[in-house]
Amino acid sequence: MIDGHGDDIYSYEGIRVNFSSNIYAHADLSKLEAHLCRHIDAIRSYPEPSARSLEKAIAHECGIDADEVLVVSGATDAIYLIAQAFRDRKTYCVYHPTFSEYDDACQLFGYEERPDGALCWLCNPNNPTGRVVSKDFIREVSSAHEILVVDQSYEDYTDYPLPQPADMLCQDNTILLHSMTKRYCIPGLRLGYITAPADIIRSLRQQYRPWAVNALAMEAGKWLLENKVQLVPDLKAYLQETQRLRQNLSRLAGIECFDTQTNFFLCAIQPCSAAELKEYLAREHGILIRDASNFRGLTPHHFRVAAQTSEENDALVAAIAQFLQQR
Amino acid sequence: MIDGHGDDIYSYEGIRVNFSSNIYAHADLSKLEAHLCRHIDAIRSYPEPSARSLEKAIAHECGIDADEVLVVSGATDAIYLIAQAFRDRKTYCVYHPTFSEYDDACQLFGYEERPDGALCWLCNPNNPTGRVVSKDFIREVSSAHEILVVDQSYEDYTDYPLPQPADMLCQDNTILLHSMTKRYCIPGLRLGYITAPADIIRSLRQQYRPWAVNALAMEAGKWLLENKVQLVPDLKAYLQETQRLRQNLSRLAGIECFDTQTNFFLCAIQPCSAAELKEYLAREHGILIRDASNFRGLTPHHFRVAAQTSEENDALVAAIAQFLQQR
Repeated sequence: MIDGHGDDIYSYEGIRVNFSSNIYAHADLSKLEAHLCRHIDAIRSYPEPSARSLEKAIAHECGIDADEVLVVSGATDAIYLIAQAFRDRKTYCVYHPTFSEYDDACQLFGYEERPDGALCWLCNPNNPTGRVVSKDFIREVSSAHEILVVDQSYEDYTDYPLPQPADMLCQDNTILLHSMTKRYCIPGLRLGYITAPADIIRSLRQQYRPWAVNALAMEAGKWLLENKVQLVPDLKAYLQETQRLRQNLSRLAGIECFDTQTNFFLCAIQPCSAAELKEYLAREHGILIRDASNFRGLTPHHFRVAAQTSEENDALVAAIAQFLQQR
Repeated sequence: MIDGHGDDIYSYEGIRVNFSSNIYAHADLSKLEAHLCRHIDAIRSYPEPSARSLEKAIAHECGIDADEVLVVSGATDAIYLIAQAFRDRKTYCVYHPTFSEYDDACQLFGYEERPDGALCWLCNPNNPTGRVVSKDFIREVSSAHEILVVDQSYEDYTDYPLPQPADMLCQDNTILLHSMTKRYCIPGLRLGYITAPADIIRSLRQQYRPWAVNALAMEAGKWLLENKVQLVPDLKAYLQETQRLRQNLSRLAGIECFDTQTNFFLCAIQPCSAAELKEYLAREHGILIRDASNFRGLTPHHFRVAAQTSEENDALVAAIAQFLQQR
């Protein structure tokens, strides 16, 4: 899917606050940006054809082997690569509602959807619901399918215990996806990685094009690992703020908010469509939310928000309250 | 192929002069770099899921329609996308020696190589030979195959007349690849585009992942088109310098140099392997050349060089002369 994702800020003018992507908009990236500007001449040379030096650094960080890591140009690139690499399995399954690219990538490569599909996708925490499943549940799902992909793009925004790369290597059919885009709030750079048993990484690498990861993404990844920067001020406080926003929104008559274990959550507006609310908020308040009606399994009334600062969250609640009163 | 390409500078220490990639190493990128540093906060937001705004600018520049352009993350990304999109055609053909990724991408998607293959690849100017074929030859090849891809990655480094995007749209089976990496000497950023009839672009776009082009590459592309910067001092002088280097090298006993119509060319060393020469030049002189022995159709004696400044070119000739004398 090209259009219809969140962070479609390029389609609007005058957006001041962006709740539409699952990313904290106020991360302090000043040191990273200064580092990239000092190394901007990296644009002049080809990046490594395969991002081996960054793979070594990630492996070291995770306590696994470098041949158990594949660095990719963002988690979405990983999703398409995995669908491509296992296309001879022919069937897949996915738990809706979830990120639409699993469906799209599998359909592109001719898979059929079946409850017992060979290639199973789990998003944990799940987009758009923000729900986390247990390690036991993951083990169960993994034993029911030939290959399990657990997309942990949002792993750094929950305090629930999630499978770590080193834990999962003993399950020879399980692949974890990780998003440096989300961890470090750098979606413009395109950077992520896959961890899996070496056999799986080898077969994915054979299907992967050279020079896929640009030189500045690679430079940023290495610097961020070395410098262990803290980008989101404090996870506990941020998750508490998310719950405060959720409670304040759910107090509005006509708004239902669903449970979450991360920094974003799903809502439904009763009196009208989410599209109508989205247009109003963008036009009248410079606020962008994610119309979630195009997630399979959801309705025209669903929308998703990712918590931002307290002031911005309060502004969102006030703006939605005003919209509901005016109707 | 991951290893074995040119510009493998990351594998060596102390390289001072790089003849191994087909890129002019002294392009003046200072204004572009300053522009990117001013817009480094582009890393904080998702790029457009599909690079439509840059596609419009390119279409305007080429005098074609925006739906006849697809911006990609470098020409190699385009090669894999095209092989993927036409994989139901099942056969391909390619003229050796040439860039190895056409073979690799087609084999990845299960194609068989046949002289009458449905999907035909032409590199023009050709890598590694630097030879240019005529527009008539391209028309002939195009009528002999279901689909023809002409990779014009090196189009800005020849003064021979090449097909322009607008000329080729009347041939409904012909795809042109263009490399902004090569045109603007920015291989670290990953940027290229495809021009083709709208039907072909539509089917390629359907197979393409979202957010494929990073935000800084997009920012650079737009700025470069707007500012029409001249990066290589003067094409005529650069091509003359290339011919001077070629003649000086071919005067060395034991070195054969082949014809070229661009800024790089193929050589063969008789007394030993190109690998041996490459190691000597890297170790003793900090000079990197491209061992071309892994191009299909070439021998262990072949190597490729791209001309640089006169002084650097003279240093290459002197270093190879020294190597030959010492043997």
